[in-house]
This record gives sequence, C-alpha cells and structure tokens, in this order.
Amino acid sequence: MVRKIENARERFGTAAIELFRARGYADTTVAQIAAAAGLTERTFFRYFIDKPEVLFWRAAELEAEVLDTIARGDDPKPLNLVIAALESAGRFFDRHRQGVQVRQAIVAEHPDFQERELMKMRSLAIAIRTALEGRGTPTGTARMVAQVGVLIWQAALERWCEDELRRDFAHHVHTSLAELTDATAR
Amino acid sequence: MVRKIENARERFGTAAIELFRARGYADTTVAQIAAAAGLTERTFFRYFIDKPEVLFWRAAELEAEVLDTIARGDDPKPLNLVIAALESAGRFFDRHRQGVQVRQAIVAEHPDFQERELMKMRSLAIAIRTALEGRGTPTGTARMVAQVGVLIWQAALERWCEDELRRDFAHHVHTSLAELTDATAR
Repeated sequence: MVRKIENARERFGTAAIELFRARGYADTTVAQIAAAAGLTERTFFRYFIDKPEVLFWRAAELEAEVLDTIARGDDPKPLNLVIAALESAGRFFDRHRQGVQVRQAIVAEHPDFQERELMKMRSLAIAIRTALEGRGTPTGTARMVAQVGVLIWQAALERWCEDELRRDFAHHVHTSLAELTDATAR
Repeated sequence: MVRKIENARERFGTAAIELFRARGYADTTVAQIAAAAGLTERTFFRYFIDKPEVLFWRAAELEAEVLDTIARGDDPKPLNLVIAALESAGRFFDRHRQGVQVRQAIVAEHPDFQERELMKMRSLAIAIRTALEGRGTPTGTARMVAQVGVLIWQAALERWCEDELRRDFAHHVHTSLAELTDATAR
C-alpha cells in the first residue's frame, strides 16, 4: 500500500514540475497535472491538499532522511553528523537537478511559498535539534548546531542552483561550511 | 510630524503590551488598546493595519538601527560590524525586558505570527547583506555573515528571554557567537 501511495505522489510530482517548467506555475491547472500523470483530479486531492503542496511534499521525505542519517551516524561531533546528513539528503537534488531548479525558482517568486519554505526550515531545525538531543548532545549545543545545519542547507542550495559548473550538492555544503567557519573565526 | 506619529505608535504599543500581559492577547480588543492609550480606534488603524501589527512594527526600527550601525562602523571584519550592530539594537530589549518577553511569548504561541517573524528575519538578513555589500564586502561573504548575524540574533533573543539572571542582550550575543564558533571549529 505504501509503495502504491508513493508512486501516485511521484507521478503527480514529476508531471507537475514538467508542466510548470513548460507552461509556468500559474498557467498549470490540477486537471492538467492529473491528465499528464495519467490519474484523476480527484486522486490528486487524495494526496495533496492544494496545488502548491506538490512543491512542498518532498520536504518531509528529505527531513526523514536527514534524521535517519543523524540517528545512524557514529561521529562524536554533532556538526559532522549533521553535515553528513545534509550530504546524504542532497543526493536527491543531484539526481533531479532540473526539477529542483524549477521548483526553487517558483518558490522564490511567491512570497506565500517563501513563508511556507521558512516554516519547513524551522521544522527541520527543530527535528535536527531533537535528533541530536536524542543522542545525548546538550540542549544548547544541539540548538545551535541544528540552526547552523539549516543555514548551511539553505546556503548550499542557493549556490548549487546558481552553479554553472553543475558541481554536486556535497561540494556546496563544504564550500558553505568553510565560508561559515571563516566568517566566525576570531 | 514624524515625532507625533512616533508618539502615537509608542502609546498604542505600550498600552497594547500592558493589556496583553494583563488579559491575554486574544481577549484584548483594539477598542481597549485605544482607550488605554487615550486615543481612538480610528487613529489606531491609521498606524497599524491590524491588531497583530502592534507586535511587529518595532522590527523596522530595529532593522534601521542595525543598518545604521553597520554603515557607521569602522571594523574591517564584517562579522564584527554585525555583532556590534546587534548589541546596539539589543539595548532596546534590555530597556523593555518585560514587554519584549510578553511579545515573544505571544509570537511563540501563534503559528501565523511565527511565519511573520520568520519573514522579518529574512528581510533583516537581506538588509544586512546589502549594507555589507555597500561597504565593499564580497557577495558570498556578505550573504553568509548576514545569515550568521540573524542566527546569532535569534539565538541570543531566545537565551535572553529564558535567562533567570537577567543578563543583558549583549552578553547573550557573545555567548551565542562563542557557541557558534565552537560548533563550527574543525
């Protein structure tokens, strides 16, 4: 059953992004997304509360992957666990470069979607903090490392989207971390 | 004229926070705020688009102070300019500790207000980045230092609100920065 659900979501999601790229977000209807996915509009609304949700549903999956990598890691340094988790989740971006870029451009153009994105990032920070605390990291450190993780995630994604050399997400995670370390060095 | 406007805003703002503290946010009406401020409801809506705005209007002033301090600073290190600016703006918090704590608690309880707060923080990051670029800081560094500044601001504010010893905002800026430096040290 789970596989079936994931397949429908994927089909809608892939069809939607392809239509957004070709016709623009505003000019794409849910009926067109459903038709392109070979499914019905009614089925669409069983998986997504509204059209914007096709831009956001993946965040929960990426968050789950980040948390899983943190839980399984064995590095004693909390930031290293988080960096490894960002790299792992970021492989999704490398595999779906064009789709992610289309998605990011749409979010950047809509203030409402930026708010939704910021709330997802806040949720990610809280989840990372909780995962680190679950491993025994003190609260103050867990909170700061989680926020640093989200900051690196956002900076890396911005750089990755702009990178004409198409280097992978992990490269930009490390560049962003180095930049952060330089900025905060005394 | 400007002074008169600022006075009315201040009177509404002070009256509102005092009522929120005493009666709760939800149980306070704009009519009650206006009465407590010795002004009319109609005047209230000349200065604030809605009741929540009394929780957010101050952000623009704090942002202006941050930008002004960055513009006037002479430290060659961008992060030091930003830290000095946060300390300067944070003196407002020390002078209005109880009001700020009431305000923070209300925002924390309302997801809508958290979104609005996150958008203000995003706006602050963009403004700091622009101010640094205006001083010749390269774009990549300016972007990262601005994001670090906002992160420190948020962490310091959270710690300051929770601090039973009532140490000043600048103390928490430095504690948060030290924690960040530790977290990112290799």
